[in-house]
Amino acid sequence: MEGEDHLAFERNKAQFDVDAMKIVWAGSSHAFEVTDRMSRLVASDPAFRKDNRPMLGRKELFKSTLKKAAYAWKRIIELRLTEEEAGKLRSFVDEPAFTDLHWGMFIPAIKGQGTEEQQQKWLPLAHKMQIIGCYAQTELGHGSNVQGLETTATFDPKTDEFVIHSPTLTSSKWWPGGLGKVSTHAVVYARLITDGKDHGVHGFIVQLRSLDDHLPLPGITIGDIGMKFGNGAYNTMDNGVLRFEHVRIPRNQMLMRVSQITREGKYVQSNVPRQLVYGTMVYVRQTIVSDASTALSRAVCIATRYSAVRRQFGANNGGLETQVIDYKTQQARLFPLLASAYAFRFVGEWLKWLYTDVMKRLQANDFSTLPEAHACTAGLKSLTTSATADGIEECRKLCGGHGYLCSSGLPELFAVYVPTCTYEGDNIVLLLQVARHLVKIVSKLGSGKKPVGTAAYMGRVEQLMEFRSDVQKAEDWLNPNAVLAAFEARAARKSVACAKNLSKFTNPEEGFQELSADLAEAAVAHCQLIVVSKFIEKLQQDIPGKGVKQQLEILCSIYALFHLHKHLGDFLSTGCITPKQGSLANDQLRSLYSQVRPNAIALVDSFNYTDHYLSSVLGRYDGNVYPKLYEEAWKDPLNDSVVPDGFEEYVRPMLKQQLRNARL
Amino acid sequence: MEGEDHLAFERNKAQFDVDAMKIVWAGSSHAFEVTDRMSRLVASDPAFRKDNRPMLGRKELFKSTLKKAAYAWKRIIELRLTEEEAGKLRSFVDEPAFTDLHWGMFIPAIKGQGTEEQQQKWLPLAHKMQIIGCYAQTELGHGSNVQGLETTATFDPKTDEFVIHSPTLTSSKWWPGGLGKVSTHAVVYARLITDGKDHGVHGFIVQLRSLDDHLPLPGITIGDIGMKFGNGAYNTMDNGVLRFEHVRIPRNQMLMRVSQITREGKYVQSNVPRQLVYGTMVYVRQTIVSDASTALSRAVCIATRYSAVRRQFGANNGGLETQVIDYKTQQARLFPLLASAYAFRFVGEWLKWLYTDVMKRLQANDFSTLPEAHACTAGLKSLTTSATADGIEECRKLCGGHGYLCSSGLPELFAVYVPTCTYEGDNIVLLLQVARHLVKIVSKLGSGKKPVGTAAYMGRVEQLMEFRSDVQKAEDWLNPNAVLAAFEARAARKSVACAKNLSKFTNPEEGFQELSADLAEAAVAHCQLIVVSKFIEKLQQDIPGKGVKQQLEILCSIYALFHLHKHLGDFLSTGCITPKQGSLANDQLRSLYSQVRPNAIALVDSFNYTDHYLSSVLGRYDGNVYPKLYEEAWKDPLNDSVVPDGFEEYVRPMLKQQLRNARL
Ligand SMILES: Cc1cc2nc3c(=O)[nH]c(=O)nc-3n(C[C@H](O)[C@H](O)[C@H](O)COP(=O)(O)OP(=O)(O)OC[C@H]3O[C@@H](n4cnc5c(N)ncnc54)[C@H](O)[C@@H]3O)c2cc1C
Ligand SMILES: Cc1cc2nc3c(=O)[nH]c(=O)nc-3n(C[C@H](O)[C@H](O)[C@H](O)COP(=O)(O)OP(=O)(O)OC[C@H]3O[C@@H](n4cnc5c(N)ncnc54)[C@H](O)[C@@H]3O)c2cc1C
Ligand SMILES: [Ca+2]
Repeated sequence: MEGEDHLAFERNKAQFDVDAMKIVWAGSSHAFEVTDRMSRLVASDPAFRKDNRPMLGRKELFKSTLKKAAYAWKRIIELRLTEEEAGKLRSFVDEPAFTDLHWGMFIPAIKGQGTEEQQQKWLPLAHKMQIIGCYAQTELGHGSNVQGLETTATFDPKTDEFVIHSPTLTSSKWWPGGLGKVSTHAVVYARLITDGKDHGVHGFIVQLRSLDDHLPLPGITIGDIGMKFGNGAYNTMDNGVLRFEHVRIPRNQMLMRVSQITREGKYVQSNVPRQLVYGTMVYVRQTIVSDASTALSRAVCIATRYSAVRRQFGANNGGLETQVIDYKTQQARLFPLLASAYAFRFVGEWLKWLYTDVMKRLQANDFSTLPEAHACTAGLKSLTTSATADGIEECRKLCGGHGYLCSSGLPELFAVYVPTCTYEGDNIVLLLQVARHLVKIVSKLGSGKKPVGTAAYMGRVEQLMEFRSDVQKAEDWLNPNAVLAAFEARAARKSVACAKNLSKFTNPEEGFQELSADLAEAAVAHCQLIVVSKFIEKLQQDIPGKGVKQQLEILCSIYALFHLHKHLGDFLSTGCITPKQGSLANDQLRSLYSQVRPNAIALVDSFNYTDHYLSSVLGRYDGNVYPKLYEEAWKDPLNDSVVPDGFEEYVRPMLKQQLRNARL
Repeated sequence: MEGEDHLAFERNKAQFDVDAMKIVWAGSSHAFEVTDRMSRLVASDPAFRKDNRPMLGRKELFKSTLKKAAYAWKRIIELRLTEEEAGKLRSFVDEPAFTDLHWGMFIPAIKGQGTEEQQQKWLPLAHKMQIIGCYAQTELGHGSNVQGLETTATFDPKTDEFVIHSPTLTSSKWWPGGLGKVSTHAVVYARLITDGKDHGVHGFIVQLRSLDDHLPLPGITIGDIGMKFGNGAYNTMDNGVLRFEHVRIPRNQMLMRVSQITREGKYVQSNVPRQLVYGTMVYVRQTIVSDASTALSRAVCIATRYSAVRRQFGANNGGLETQVIDYKTQQARLFPLLASAYAFRFVGEWLKWLYTDVMKRLQANDFSTLPEAHACTAGLKSLTTSATADGIEECRKLCGGHGYLCSSGLPELFAVYVPTCTYEGDNIVLLLQVARHLVKIVSKLGSGKKPVGTAAYMGRVEQLMEFRSDVQKAEDWLNPNAVLAAFEARAARKSVACAKNLSKFTNPEEGFQELSADLAEAAVAHCQLIVVSKFIEKLQQDIPGKGVKQQLEILCSIYALFHLHKHLGDFLSTGCITPKQGSLANDQLRSLYSQVRPNAIALVDSFNYTDHYLSSVLGRYDGNVYPKLYEEAWKDPLNDSVVPDGFEEYVRPMLKQQLRNARL
């Protein structure tokens, strides 16, 4: 029955225009067109096959990644793809590789921190991949605390060189992707030392391997740091270890846009504002937030389709059993994740705008919005990646036993995603940065300086401290203003309460440490408010397509009310709402789940993912799950032979009571 | 510096007798002695090496598991180990294998469901491993709904045989461990059909493979279902698929303890009470709860030791940085998990008692406590396994980037653990069973029949509905009665509220479906109360050893107050406590974290785990993390050569701009 759509009956239930929703999801018609074209290009090319990944040993796996990366680059050149198209193509290849760091970290670091001259020298080489670079910051002993890095770059005025050195074991670079086996170059972060003086951590372009024979250059030790979580997953990447034994590089390989070392060894600052680095941070984190919505939506798509296929219990007289998607517990776990995927999409979109806004202001030497933009991206990175990691695993559990098979696609999706909670800022460390920002805002509230951007609501703190929700019936919670007011009041009160408790400490830093768990909670409340408010703002725009806006309104309400229910303690303890109002929100939530139910399949179809990209038997577009699960099983190497390797040596002697003499 | 204890300064801080705590953790001096001896036996034998698991391909991995299983069995025989010792030895080998199902499901199924005669025939063979058995219940299309299984066992009176058959694709047995490659026999669950009548699902002993050449017998198709989540992990197990094409077995291979088919094909019930099967369920779930405390404590041990080794930020003038275990956010994430490990230990211990109590009553035909015992084990299985799965992943995140390496041990611990949330009852399905039980109790409250066991508190429902906590200062929360009363009131009120909402529905089943998410929450509240109350009961016993009881009191308070804080919405919305009291609980929690801090390392040392069992560079007893991480890295197969396989074919052409002609 190849070709039959087992989910057609679900698709027919949809109450909105799926094609219009696809464009909303993609961000624009143009974005949809490019995404759609690139995803099909990858899906239709057998060279990009990836379903065999879990079965490959590390070496085979890595070799196949090298091949795919080269092939992708070849296609990019042959098809003369634009930068946008090339980026999309790489993302649909869906396999972590050295190219991610080369394009995503090495080149941006040179662009952001290199002088014009340095950019002119290095970027053309990098753009043509005549050199391959990585980003070597983290060390065995230092990750979060970048200022504590131990690698040194000591200026030698005699030869006009820096001497790069790893003085301790813990100073070994550790984790950089692409470093272990592939990169020819790296941006290395090291303490700059001139004349015995330590100027703190700076970036340096260092050649690591010979462009002839690919061997590490003299004084350089490099290797791979070993297997990471999961099958396939991040094991396609050569995260590496790197040590320097007094390695010399010319002075002009220090990235000198912001500060320089002169020929005489003098440390001087340029007139380029240091704050520029924040621009890059905002940019990187914005992509992480939008990637979170992608990862979460993939998992949700799989779990939603399978929940409509899977039937369990409830058959009357031999009829069909109940689709598990019809169980309210299943809905209460799944639909908030569906809503979150959309919510993160829109907040990611807004962050893109924020980035361009920040850059425009920087160019005009306006730094006023920078702290807020920085805090807000830090918080959203933390919030969305934590929720996505947990959400993927929840989707796996929603698939019951079959979700545990690699062929479900969910184990690899989880394993490859979770480090996002750790890199580009550990999620807890980031929340504490947001909390510092919030406390600062509260402390300045009396000064007349109005908080800006996503913290603007704090300017209405007096009003928010007085606020009592006026919700009287369940449907009142569908009013965006009711929701927004409750989330604003909760966030403001949590920050104010923290600030008040902090003021009881004579040493503010000690107080911050002692109360940090509460402060992190205040930061979460603030970030959830941002997500809710950006979703609501999105809905204030014109959104074409039959029923599209209505569906999004439902999802927005689900996102908000689910979090209100989950964090009910916050809302009640701050007195923003009453227990009765909390219970009404819960009633409304149940009714919203029923409204999503007929649209669920269409809402995940709107992501427009190919079966190749999902790489999940459970998430197949056509819902033809069981025959394909059965087929997949036989591909396992263990099924190469009926009697397994090892039977004669180990199992037969057991069965025949001859273990005593067996050679084990 | 081999041999130096880098955590000695932490161990010196302990304020209690670690050796005494080890005995409390183990359950008794005897249990400690056996556990200690078996864990050392395994740890000291290189045949049980397991650190190479992540690097092995599926076939190699599986073969090495067969070898270890045979070797373990050989040692068990050679050393004439008792059943208890053998069980411990297998658990310290720490590798899922066909033997788990043979000893843990196949033999117990025959014991529980077989007649005396059947036991006499099959058990000696199984005990000597002359046959190897598995437990074949789940099918491709049916897991949770056992009553919906499709495999048929049709009685043929002509030949006095059953014909076992797989009528559909979805009736294929799917998931049974040990089935795919090893088992010679299985207990197969199938619909019993006599004379066209379907008597529902029953168990049958079926030989699957020839005892000569190990090939599947005629009419039988078997294979492995493929790779599962993670490196190593459950991939050492041959979870299998199985199909029958009209396979005949003698009538006496139906497990006939409870019901029989006569020679004439008549279906008759024996006088053995059907409820006996619940006894087995209570037994299996009790072991799952106690395994939860083991798995969680392993992860907590790793994360705690590493958090004391890891330093990040906060150095003054080049001094040592702050140990990350000193950050309050780290404590607020880690210590509740430490407390949970102990809490689950003690509730597991209590369940052991409950099992013997239930069995005693069953033998005396007293079924009165059975529904309650059944609900309570279902709920505790769900609660403890969900918390453990989440807790392991949280411990991994607590280790920052290095937790993502397989050498941290945490990825495999997570991947091998998570299916526990799904098998032996999906955790959500189980919560709904508990909820049904609670609703029934509430509905009978007027009848004068007092609820028993862990539901006894519901007998005081009127008083609990009136309850208002009288906590006035933070320390009041250290009083076990204050805690217990709040948890009882919250649980009772949630159940009563659900029952009240249910009564608004004319169709109670429809109401149950509609409100099931709330019902599951009520079940969680009930189960958390059980854990809290069993911990408190434990502390009412005499516990010897300097400072041991004090530490356990602290952990008990942390467990309770952490959950009070986490579920504050429940406590506030039911009016059990005031916001002020909630905030006092939070203050008390912070102070408890400070009290645990100096004892943290000693509290995880008390688990008495060997470095072999932990299999984690981060969790090493001696804290010598960095040199060992560095050493481990070089063992990865990718480091076999300096220039990676694939460089010449794929990377060089890229660097040299010769991709156009490259063969890709
Ligand atoms: C897959 C992967 C890829 C990576 N790729 C790269 C790369 O290409 N280049 C590169 O340079 N690096 C890379 N990294 C490293 C990554 O950036 C670091 O792992 C990350 O910055 C976290 O730092 P850490 O590992 O030192 O965590 P730690 O800081 O050691 O965190 C350990 C624990 O301490 C807590 N903690 C730390 N400081 C504080 C504090 N002040 N207050 C409260 N709690 C605290 C954390 O919350 C965490 O629970 C990668 C890592 C991974 C996992
Ligand atoms: C590693 C592993 C080992 C196993 N070993 C064995 C073995 O040795 N022998 C054996 O026979 N089986 C084995 N199993 C199978 C296991 O017992 C089943 O996977 C388990 O019973 C869950 O059933 P399911 O997979 O059908 O989940 P499903 O029931 O399909 O669950 C899918 C989703 O539906 C939801 N759902 C289902 N019913 C309801 C309901 N009534 N109300 C609300 N929600 C519902 C669930 O909560 C879940 O979210 C194993 C499974 C695994 C993963
Ligand atoms: Ca492998």
